Amino acid sequence: MSDDGIYYGDYLQINKLLDAQVLESTKAGETVHDEMLFIIVHQSYELWFKQVLWELDSVIEIFSNDVVPERAMGTALGRLRRINSIQALMIQTISVLETMTPLDFLDFRDYLFPASGFQSAQFRLVENKLGLRRRDRLLLSGEVYTARFDDSDRDLVEATEDDPSLFDLVERWLERTPFLEYEDFQFWEAYRDAVLARIQADRAVVESNENLTDQERVAQLREFDLVFDQHAALFDVEKHKIEQEAGRIRMSQRAFQAAVFITLYRDEPAVQGASRLLELLMDLDEGFTTWRYRHAQMALRMIGRRIGTGGSAGARYLEKSAERSRVFTDLLNLSTFLVPRSDRPKLPEELVESMRFRFQA
Amino acid sequence: MSDDGIYYGDYLQINKLLDAQVLESTKAGETVHDEMLFIIVHQSYELWFKQVLWELDSVIEIFSNDVVPERAMGTALGRLRRINSIQALMIQTISVLETMTPLDFLDFRDYLFPASGFQSAQFRLVENKLGLRRRDRLLLSGEVYTARFDDSDRDLVEATEDDPSLFDLVERWLERTPFLEYEDFQFWEAYRDAVLARIQADRAVVESNENLTDQERVAQLREFDLVFDQHAALFDVEKHKIEQEAGRIRMSQRAFQAAVFITLYRDEPAVQGASRLLELLMDLDEGFTTWRYRHAQMALRMIGRRIGTGGSAGARYLEKSAERSRVFTDLLNLSTFLVPRSDRPKLPEELVESMRFRFQA
Amino acid sequence: MSDDGIYYGDYLQINKLLDAQVLESTKAGETVHDEMLFIIVHQSYELWFKQVLWELDSVIEIFSNDVVPERAMGTALGRLRRINSIQALMIQTISVLETMTPLDFLDFRDYLFPASGFQSAQFRLVENKLGLRRRDRLLLSGEVYTARFDDSDRDLVEATEDDPSLFDLVERWLERTPFLEYEDFQFWEAYRDAVLARIQADRAVVESNENLTDQERVAQLREFDLVFDQHAALFDVEKHKIEQEAGRIRMSQRAFQAAVFITLYRDEPAVQGASRLLELLMDLDEGFTTWRYRHAQMALRMIGRRIGTGGSAGARYLEKSAERSRVFTDLLNLSTFLVPRSDRPKLPEELVESMRFRFQA
Amino acid sequence: MSDDGIYYGDYLQINKLLDAQVLESTKAGETVHDEMLFIIVHQSYELWFKQVLWELDSVIEIFSNDVVPERAMGTALGRLRRINSIQALMIQTISVLETMTPLDFLDFRDYLFPASGFQSAQFRLVENKLGLRRRDRLLLSGEVYTARFDDSDRDLVEATEDDPSLFDLVERWLERTPFLEYEDFQFWEAYRDAVLARIQADRAVVESNENLTDQERVAQLREFDLVFDQHAALFDVEKHKIEQEAGRIRMSQRAFQAAVFITLYRDEPAVQGASRLLELLMDLDEGFTTWRYRHAQMALRMIGRRIGTGGSAGARYLEKSAERSRVFTDLLNLSTFLVPRSDRPKLPEELVESMRFRFQA
Repeated sequence: MSDDGIYYGDYLQINKLLDAQVLESTKAGETVHDEMLFIIVHQSYELWFKQVLWELDSVIEIFSNDVVPERAMGTALGRLRRINSIQALMIQTISVLETMTPLDFLDFRDYLFPASGFQSAQFRLVENKLGLRRRDRLLLSGEVYTARFDDSDRDLVEATEDDPSLFDLVERWLERTPFLEYEDFQFWEAYRDAVLARIQADRAVVESNENLTDQERVAQLREFDLVFDQHAALFDVEKHKIEQEAGRIRMSQRAFQAAVFITLYRDEPAVQGASRLLELLMDLDEGFTTWRYRHAQMALRMIGRRIGTGGSAGARYLEKSAERSRVFTDLLNLSTFLVPRSDRPKLPEELVESMRFRFQA
Repeated sequence: MSDDGIYYGDYLQINKLLDAQVLESTKAGETVHDEMLFIIVHQSYELWFKQVLWELDSVIEIFSNDVVPERAMGTALGRLRRINSIQALMIQTISVLETMTPLDFLDFRDYLFPASGFQSAQFRLVENKLGLRRRDRLLLSGEVYTARFDDSDRDLVEATEDDPSLFDLVERWLERTPFLEYEDFQFWEAYRDAVLARIQADRAVVESNENLTDQERVAQLREFDLVFDQHAALFDVEKHKIEQEAGRIRMSQRAFQAAVFITLYRDEPAVQGASRLLELLMDLDEGFTTWRYRHAQMALRMIGRRIGTGGSAGARYLEKSAERSRVFTDLLNLSTFLVPRSDRPKLPEELVESMRFRFQA
Repeated sequence: MSDDGIYYGDYLQINKLLDAQVLESTKAGETVHDEMLFIIVHQSYELWFKQVLWELDSVIEIFSNDVVPERAMGTALGRLRRINSIQALMIQTISVLETMTPLDFLDFRDYLFPASGFQSAQFRLVENKLGLRRRDRLLLSGEVYTARFDDSDRDLVEATEDDPSLFDLVERWLERTPFLEYEDFQFWEAYRDAVLARIQADRAVVESNENLTDQERVAQLREFDLVFDQHAALFDVEKHKIEQEAGRIRMSQRAFQAAVFITLYRDEPAVQGASRLLELLMDLDEGFTTWRYRHAQMALRMIGRRIGTGGSAGARYLEKSAERSRVFTDLLNLSTFLVPRSDRPKLPEELVESMRFRFQA
Repeated sequence: MSDDGIYYGDYLQINKLLDAQVLESTKAGETVHDEMLFIIVHQSYELWFKQVLWELDSVIEIFSNDVVPERAMGTALGRLRRINSIQALMIQTISVLETMTPLDFLDFRDYLFPASGFQSAQFRLVENKLGLRRRDRLLLSGEVYTARFDDSDRDLVEATEDDPSLFDLVERWLERTPFLEYEDFQFWEAYRDAVLARIQADRAVVESNENLTDQERVAQLREFDLVFDQHAALFDVEKHKIEQEAGRIRMSQRAFQAAVFITLYRDEPAVQGASRLLELLMDLDEGFTTWRYRHAQMALRMIGRRIGTGGSAGARYLEKSAERSRVFTDLLNLSTFLVPRSDRPKLPEELVESMRFRFQA
C-alpha cells in the first residue's frame, strides 16, 4: 500500500484498541473466560460516553450563543437524536452483559476489587454537562460522587461543575423566547385565565363523580389542592421561589412559562424546532434513567446482596438514583399545566404572522 | 377461490379485528387523530397477553405433573424463551406510544374516564398465573387489584387466585430434585461448610481492607451480619420460617437448596435444562419489571400530576409495583449464596455418573 | 360501575378481539400449540397495518393541499416518525415468530393451505398509498399482486391504485419549491457548474491513483462515464425522460432538482422541515425493505424449499421484492449528486433572508 | 488509593482507548464533527469482533475434542447465545451510524480514501473461523478478500484458512452422532420410506388442487422433481457428491443425516442440547446476514453511486454477499426434508431409553 493511502487498521488504531484487554484473572494465573466480556462491555461504554460528550459539547456550544442561530437548530436536534440512538444501544448492551451468569462473575469478581463503574469519569462528565448538580446527587454510602476517583479524574470532573451546563443554557435560551409578550397581549395572563377555568371544571367533575369512593374523592381533591398551589407558583414569583428552594421546580419562572408556550403552540413554524428540542431533552433524561434502572436490575441479579462488594448498596443506589438523576424534570411536570388546544389563548394575528417564514409573506 | 381453500382474511378474522377500533372522540363528534394509536397499542397488548397466557398455561401444564418428563423440558424452555421475546416486543411498544405527545393525549383523554390499564383482566391473569399473591400486591389508592373490574372480569381473575401458579409448581419441582442426597453424601451439609469458610474469608478481607473508610467498614460488617443471618436461614428451619413470614424469602427451604444445587452444578447433563429454566424465570421477572417501569415513565410524561385522572397516583403505583411485582425474587437473591466453582463441594463420582446419559455409560 | 363510565374492556372491545383466534388444527381435531402464535403474530401485523394506514392517510391529506401549510409540517414529520417506530416493532415481531421451529410449523401448516401473507389487503394498500405502481411490482409466479384476493379485497385494493400516492404528492410539493429561482440566480445552473468541476476532479483522482490496479481503474472510469450520463440527465430534459422510461429515475426533473436543493441547504430555517421529510421518507423505504428481507429469511428457514407450498417461490419473491419495492429510490440516489458544503453555490443574500422567520427581520 | 486496589480507569486502560480517536479532518486542518461518530462506530465494531472471536474460539475448542463432553454442551450453547446477542447490538449500531447524513459524510469521506471496512482483519477472521471458504466468497471488483490488507493482516487472516473451522468441527461432531443405527434399526432407511410416502402425498395434493392455475401446477411439479432429486441425494452417495460439487450441499451425507435426526427427535433428553446447537448456528448465520444487509442499505444511502470511492461496487458486494456468506445453509435447507411428527419413524424402545439420564433408570 502506498504511504499516502489511509489504512483502515491504522486509521482506527486497531492495534492500540485490541491491546487494551488485560484480564486480571490471567494475571492471577487462571484466565476466566467471561472476564473478557466484562472488559469489552465497559470499554464499549467508554467509547460511547466519549461520543455522547462530543455531541453534548457541540450542542452546548450552539446554545452558548447569546442568540442561537436558527440555522443551527436543525443541527442541534440531529445531535440530540443521535445521543438518543446511542442510549438505546447502551441499554441493549446490558442484555449482552446479562449473558454472563452470577456463578461466572463470581470466578473473577474478587480480582477487580474495589473498582466499580462509579469510577467512570466520563459518565460523571456527562451528568455534569447535562446539568446534574451536587445538591441533586444521591450520596453513595455517604460519599460524594468523586470520592472514588484518582486525583486526575477528580480534577477533570470537578472542573466541569461550574461550566454552564446544557440545562443552564437551555434555561437561558427559553428565557429569551420572544413571543410571550406582543403589544397588548400577555400570553401568561391569558393562559392563567384559561388554566383557572380548567381547574374549576376539573374540580367540579371530581366532586360530582359518583364512580369514586369517598376515599378516592378526598384523595383527589387533596391532590387538586396541591396542584392548584403548583399552578400558583407559575404566576406568583414568591411562590415559584418556594418551589425552587424545595427542589420541586428547577428552572426559572420565565423559562418555564416559555416552555409552556412552546409546547402549546408547537405547530407555529418558528416554534416547531423549539418544541422538538424540548421533546428530545425529555428523551435524553428518559434514556439515562432507563439505562440506570436496567443497570441496577443487572447488578442485583449478578451480585445479590453479597457482603464486601458494596454491590448491594451499589444496586440500591443505581435504582434510587435512576429517578433522582433526571435533569429536565420540569419538562415532564409541564404536562400538568397543559390545556386542551381549544382552551389555548388565541394569539394575536400579527404575532402568528411573525412566526412564519419571510418568503411566505 | 374454492370453498375448501383457507383465505388469509377469514382465517385471521381480519374484518372482526378491524371493526374493533371505535374512537370515543369520534363518538363525541370530533375525531382526535392520536386516539387510534392509543387504541391499537392497547389492543396489541391484549393480543400479546393472550399469547403469553397460552404459553404460560402450557408450561404450567408441563409442570403440573408429579414428575416433569425430561422430554418436556426442552419444550418448556422454548416457551419461556418465547414469552421473553414477547416481553421485548411489549417494552418496545411503549416507544411507539411515546410518539404521542401530552398535548395530543389531552385532546381525548377525558373521553376515556375512568377507564385505565388497571382494568386489564388478562394482565392480572398473567400475574396470578406467574404467582403474584394478594398479599404481595401493592394497593392502588387503597384498593384491591380487582376493584375496578366489572363482575365478569373480576370473577375470571379471582378464579385463578387459588390455582397452582407457576411459582408453586416450580417450587414443588425443585423440592423433588433428586441429587441433594446420595448415600452418605449430604450436599447441604457440605455446602454449609464451604459457605461458612467463605464468609469468614470475606469478613477477614473487609476487616483488613485499608481502602475502606471507617464508615464503610462498619456499614459492610453490619451488612455482613445480616447476610450471615440469611445464610443461617438456609440451614435452620426455624430461621427460614422467620424469613418467610417477614416476606424476605418465599420458597421453601428444600426448594431453595435445590435451586442453589442446580445453579452450582449446572454443567452436569441432568442439570443443564433445570439451570436454564431458573435463568429464564429470572428473565421473565425482569421482562415484566422493565415493562412496568417504562410504562410508569411514559405515564408520568403523558399525564404529569394532573388532578382527577388518578394518573399521578397510577404512575407512582406502576413505579413502586415494578420491583414489588417480581415473583422469583428468591432466584435473584440466590446470587448471595453462591461460592466460587473451586469451593463447590465435590460430588461423589457415582452421583456425577448418574447425571449423565445412559448411552454414555 | 356507572353506565356513564368508560370500561377498558368495552372501549377496546377485548371480547371481540379475543374471540378472533380460531385454530385450524383445533377444528381438525388436534390442537397444535404453535398455531396460536402464528395467528397472533399476523393479527398483530394487521392491527399495525391499520395504524400505518391511519398515519399515511393523514400525511397524504396534509400533502394534498395546493400549498402544504407550514403549520402542518411538524405534524407530518411526527407521523412519519411514528410509522418508523411501528416498522421497528414489525421487524422485531419477526424475531418472536422465529421462536417457532420448522418442525412445529410443519404440524399445522397444511391446514392453512393455500392462505398466505400475499393475501393481506392492508399491506397492499400500504404499498399503493406509498406509491408502488403495478409496473414496479415483481410478479409472484407470474401473477399480478391482487390475484389471490377475494373479490372484496381486490376491489378495495385496486380502488387505491389511481389515488394520488404519497410519492405523487411529495413530487408535486417538491416541484412547488420556491427557492430554486430568485431574480438572476438560477440554482440549477450554478449547481451544474459546481458538479461538473467536481466530476473532473474525481476523474483526475482516479486516473492518478497508483493504489488501483488497472482492472480497478478501468472499472471505475467506466462507472464514471455512467454517472456522468446520469448527471447529464439532471440538466437535460430529454435525457431525464430516457432515464425515467428506463426506470432508473422516477420523479420529475423539477422535483429532483428541488430535492437536491433541500438536501444541500437543509440548515436554512425554511428548509429544515423539508430536509427532515426527505430523510424520513428514506427511513420509510428502509423500514419496509428490512422487514421484507427479514420476512424472507424467516420464510426460508421455516419452509425450506418444500414442494407444494409455494413457500420457496414466496421466499425468493420476498427477497427480490425487498429492494424492488422501494418507492423513494430517487432520494437514495440523490447522494450521488451531492457536492461538499464548500462547493455549494452561494445563495443570494436576499434569498437567504427570505428563508428566515419574519420575527427575526 | 492503595497501590493494591484495582482502579477502573487503569483496569480498562481508558486513557489508551480514549487516545485512539484521531480525525483525518482535524489533521487536514478542518475538523468535521461527524468523523468522530464514524471512528467510534467502527472502533466499537472492532471491540465486539474481538469478543465474538473470543467466544468462537472457545466453542471451537470445545468441539475440537474427539468427543465433546456433554458437560461442555451447556457452555457452548451459552456462548453461541452470547454471540447472537452481540450481533443484535452490531445491527442496531448501524442505526446509530445512520444518524449521519450523506452530506455530512461527504465533508470528510475523501480524507479516508482508500480505507474501507473490507480491510477489517477481525471480520475476515470471524468468517474464516465460522467456515467461509475462499471458494464460497464473492470477489469484490475481481479481487480476493485479502487483497486490501497490509502484509501483517494478510498473514494473520490467511493463517486461519486451514484451521478447522466451526463448520468443520460441527460436521465431524454430527458424523459421530451415535443414534442413527441401533441393532436392527437403521434410522435412515426408515426415514427414507416415510419421506417417499410424504412426497407422493404432496404430489397428489398438487395434482388434484383446483385452486392452482395450470401455470402454477406445472411450476410446482417442476419444483417437485427438483426436490425429489434433492431427496435422492440424501440417500444416494453419488448423488450427494454431485450436489456437493455443484455447491448446493456442503456437509457430508452422514453429518446431514445426523442433523435431520437431531431435528426430528429433538425432545429426547440426549438430543435437546444438540437440537439447540443447530438452531443457534442458524441464528449465527442469520445475524451476520442481516448485519451485512443493513450495512449494504446504509452504504447505498450514504454514498449512492458516486464515482471513485468503490462505494457503489462495495454496496452491491455487501448486498450479494449477504446471502452468499451463510455457512450453515444446509441447516436451513434441512426444513425441506422434515416430516410431520406423526410420520417420524418410531425409535426402538431401548434406543429411547438410552437417550435418557442414568438416574432415571
